[in-house]
Amino acid sequence: MELEAAALAANEAFYAPFNQKDAALMDAIWADSADVTCIHPGWNLLQGRDGVLESWRNILTNPAQPRIVTGGAKVSLHGSIAVVVCRELVGGSPLIATNVFVLESETWKLLHHHSGPVLGGNG
Amino acid sequence: MELEAAALAANEAFYAPFNQKDAALMDAIWADSADVTCIHPGWNLLQGRDGVLESWRNILTNPAQPRIVTGGAKVSLHGSIAVVVCRELVGGSPLIATNVFVLESETWKLLHHHSGPVLGGNG
Repeated sequence: MELEAAALAANEAFYAPFNQKDAALMDAIWADSADVTCIHPGWNLLQGRDGVLESWRNILTNPAQPRIVTGGAKVSLHGSIAVVVCRELVGGSPLIATNVFVLESETWKLLHHHSGPVLGGNG
Repeated sequence: MELEAAALAANEAFYAPFNQKDAALMDAIWADSADVTCIHPGWNLLQGRDGVLESWRNILTNPAQPRIVTGGAKVSLHGSIAVVVCRELVGGSPLIATNVFVLESETWKLLHHHSGPVLGGNG
């Protein structure tokens, strides 16, 4: 698959376990070798695979966690790095995310996720 | 200068024109060749150099815009890309930023900026 299309597919694949509440799938989405980082909406930085994946397990096992809908993904390719920006809609609240993927064994894996609220009034 | 230190220096240099209200300096910070993108706190995505730089000119010429203080920058290097995450404090409000830099003529230039609020209660 062409690299840009593959990066967009990886971005979609990142959101699938969110709705499927599948922690094992979420684990497989994230980069293995890299020092991964994650900023949930309103949170401080989480750094390292253990802390990041623990935060996702807590989110995925929270019965009150609403589903996520995403759209408008745009990808920017730079060698072994793909920067994807997309909209997120969680329980009716608009968010915007930066997702940075790294090529590991020819597969795009998530290196950094940063999601924050869109408060409206522009764009 | 070693690449990681240079990326951290580029990240600091990005915030200098903010406090100096220097639009020309801000222009020079951003990548030339790349399709730059910017997400200000609470905003939707801005895409392309013209729109991104116009938003910064508006911010820098706003007399009510408070100063920014930054800290805790962490860099992750991947070939010609550096992903920097740092804290921002704007008018007493805590924010967190993802800044993605690309090497252009051996100089780190800003490709993507995403800043969003930290609402407290974690980290």
